[in-house]
Amino acid sequence: MFSANEKKKFGKLKKGLIDIVGSENIDDSTSGRLVYSYDATPNYQSLPDVIVAPGSAEEMAAVLKLCNDMETPVYARGSGTNLCADTCPLKGGVVLLFKRMNQILELDKENLTITVQPGVITKEICDCVEAQGLFYPPDPGSMAIATIGGNISENSGGLHGLKYGVTRDYVLALQVALPNGKLIRTGGKLTKDVAGYDLTRLFIGSEGTLGVITEATLKLIPKPESQKTILALYQDLEAAGRSVSSIIANKMIPATLEFLDQDTLKAVEGFAHIGLPTNVQAILLIVQDGPAEIVDRDIQRIAEICREQQAVDVQLAASEEEAQKLATARRTALSALARLKPTTILEDATVPRSEIAKMVRAIADIAQKYDLRISTFGHAGDGNLHPTCLTDARNTEEMERVEKAFAEIFEKAIELGGTLTGEHGVGATKAPYLKWKLGEAGLEVMRGIKQSIDPKGIMNPGKVFADVSIEREATAK
Amino acid sequence: MFSANEKKKFGKLKKGLIDIVGSENIDDSTSGRLVYSYDATPNYQSLPDVIVAPGSAEEMAAVLKLCNDMETPVYARGSGTNLCADTCPLKGGVVLLFKRMNQILELDKENLTITVQPGVITKEICDCVEAQGLFYPPDPGSMAIATIGGNISENSGGLHGLKYGVTRDYVLALQVALPNGKLIRTGGKLTKDVAGYDLTRLFIGSEGTLGVITEATLKLIPKPESQKTILALYQDLEAAGRSVSSIIANKMIPATLEFLDQDTLKAVEGFAHIGLPTNVQAILLIVQDGPAEIVDRDIQRIAEICREQQAVDVQLAASEEEAQKLATARRTALSALARLKPTTILEDATVPRSEIAKMVRAIADIAQKYDLRISTFGHAGDGNLHPTCLTDARNTEEMERVEKAFAEIFEKAIELGGTLTGEHGVGATKAPYLKWKLGEAGLEVMRGIKQSIDPKGIMNPGKVFADVSIEREATAK
Repeated sequence: MFSANEKKKFGKLKKGLIDIVGSENIDDSTSGRLVYSYDATPNYQSLPDVIVAPGSAEEMAAVLKLCNDMETPVYARGSGTNLCADTCPLKGGVVLLFKRMNQILELDKENLTITVQPGVITKEICDCVEAQGLFYPPDPGSMAIATIGGNISENSGGLHGLKYGVTRDYVLALQVALPNGKLIRTGGKLTKDVAGYDLTRLFIGSEGTLGVITEATLKLIPKPESQKTILALYQDLEAAGRSVSSIIANKMIPATLEFLDQDTLKAVEGFAHIGLPTNVQAILLIVQDGPAEIVDRDIQRIAEICREQQAVDVQLAASEEEAQKLATARRTALSALARLKPTTILEDATVPRSEIAKMVRAIADIAQKYDLRISTFGHAGDGNLHPTCLTDARNTEEMERVEKAFAEIFEKAIELGGTLTGEHGVGATKAPYLKWKLGEAGLEVMRGIKQSIDPKGIMNPGKVFADVSIEREATAK
Repeated sequence: MFSANEKKKFGKLKKGLIDIVGSENIDDSTSGRLVYSYDATPNYQSLPDVIVAPGSAEEMAAVLKLCNDMETPVYARGSGTNLCADTCPLKGGVVLLFKRMNQILELDKENLTITVQPGVITKEICDCVEAQGLFYPPDPGSMAIATIGGNISENSGGLHGLKYGVTRDYVLALQVALPNGKLIRTGGKLTKDVAGYDLTRLFIGSEGTLGVITEATLKLIPKPESQKTILALYQDLEAAGRSVSSIIANKMIPATLEFLDQDTLKAVEGFAHIGLPTNVQAILLIVQDGPAEIVDRDIQRIAEICREQQAVDVQLAASEEEAQKLATARRTALSALARLKPTTILEDATVPRSEIAKMVRAIADIAQKYDLRISTFGHAGDGNLHPTCLTDARNTEEMERVEKAFAEIFEKAIELGGTLTGEHGVGATKAPYLKWKLGEAGLEVMRGIKQSIDPKGIMNPGKVFADVSIEREATAK
């Protein structure tokens, strides 16, 4: 495994790590390393050298300093649910776990904030605050298993993005361990704070390439008093897209506005058995929340708009229970689709919401062109679609077509004023395409920042910054 | 004025600038330079060498490249309303104006966005979108004369911060000219976008020290259907502070929650003559907006809470017109106070809202200790107070006491978990204190970013980064 020199270096690293966290919090067994060699992203696997679980911010900072001194790569890893290979230890080195930093530290009901360690599961935060009549809106599909540290590092979105925003909009303060071994605090329990650059938001969504989040203070809002759910059924994909634009152009912002195409509907119904319609081309799952009288009014107007836009049926969820079932079913979309074929490749190209209908049509055309099975579901209100390719990684010829098809999907999203990734992150999977969105000058600014904070490049190497960018076909033409 | 060498260099600069923007868009007359030698901040003045008004993003980028090549400082300046000397050309060089880049480019009703050039006046944006039933919430006190470019560069706040957030929360996309002469675009008409570091928010609030904003796309929301305003009157400052915490702990988030102390009330009433009470210690001006039935319910509950917390009276604004008068009167607070003494020094120390009562008390104690007249008003719901010292810059002895008093106010704000500046920015005035909030390690991260984007330090030199930090008394003890 190691050369003599490497072995000596690893021995020194291991001793240093034991000094910091204790031998019981280190694992360099083959089985242990295998467990952390991959994440939820298909086709990426690489063995780390050692797994380390620091117990405090100070231990985390000391581990980073040691790794920086020894030029050893580090990968912060929550629950490994990310979909861009961000927690795959591509260049070996140290995987950092947060299982000893998983406490809710404070719920402040006067300032409406909660302060947590990075290893807390997101749903645990939601449940904790909802019990107090409060609300933490960001709800990525993986919220029942993902950690808040991971959510912050990826700037996770979810079903509530349209009305309530994403993780970024709810982080007030961070403590971050830097590769130089220092701890910094950004922000505070403050609505307004302009003391210096917005470092809080620089670290949010930086995918572990700049520092490791060791504590976060999150903003809470009062829990909406009530909510109602409707399903609008369509035989025409573009009619569904038009409904989305029309609802918002009519100045209503639903709490959730999800799109599922027929393929996804069939997969979800086959998995969840809750009586979803499978004989239509697409549905919109629409939730409004707020004071009861306003919810009633909005839901009625939204239903009218959907009918005007040729929805073939609009169904109101009969009870809170049925509404919950629908929301849960929607969350299972990825798992349900994943059962159908050996490999599921899920992307999240995002467009301005006015372009949803065009994008849905373009995805269908691209799937046909490359003879692939691509199901589409996603957060239609955000323009954040999840085209999902059901394929088989062992079929090399098909995988080449998959790659070409997704490159065309990215191309189309950008052409429509959109982006490569709305909520999954760049990681390793989209790094080669990032230049398409940011241009060389934008990438250069990012590289400068990375270099200034992590000069030795130990933080999550191989992610966000590609060794080689893929050239854009349209540009080359 | 110039040495022979400097004269030659200036000649070359001027010729280069004329080549880019044309001689009609350049002014190096003494009177022209005098006009732009200061901004709304007392006690700061410095002559620039030349005033330049580029007509496009490309011209702006070319001017930056020229200045970077010649190592000439540049200062982007909107309307010069800022209160931290951010637009004062401390080190000479070029002042950049936006009077030729002041167009609204697009109002997109389907995606609820507006795209503007940086020189547009903020109120013009508000009026334009309100005519369409839409709402751009950030409303700094200076909105009737300040430019949106300035608001973005300062991450301006305002009266709507508590419920609706600040400028940062409404900027979706930017075009920025960099000192290397390149133009970059960040973000898009997208609720969700995680393609790379959050450069949009890095430039927001960077006070012109990293780049010049040449275009911005702003997020709009539906205009609230109705609003109501109440005044709660107090004979006890801390009772007012407790009311603020209690309203929010009761899960209501008012659209506006302003605090004015007796001194401010007297000054405003003397200026605006609208019948404000001047025989009480303080008032809260509270606005709720939304659907009419919800506004009624909230306003009633808020009034009850204020009475429970010993408000001596609670008055409902009789009409929309009266409510508007109150809001306008509140906006005049700074001007009204400024009439009373030759020099007005306004700060914006900010604390978690639970600490408002303590902070108001501390400011009063500090004023007494240093024998100064400090009036306090501000955005109580945000914990964003504006202690305002009425003084006279010609009285050196008093000015020394003013400086000491404000250092103590900053100290106290940070001790209470707050910040040096909630919405006015660091600029030159708070740069020496910034270390108190960020620590040396945080400042170091900021310096690294600055160095990577503006290696020659031409962008607004003398701001944000102090040549010498003031040491914190408490730390020294």
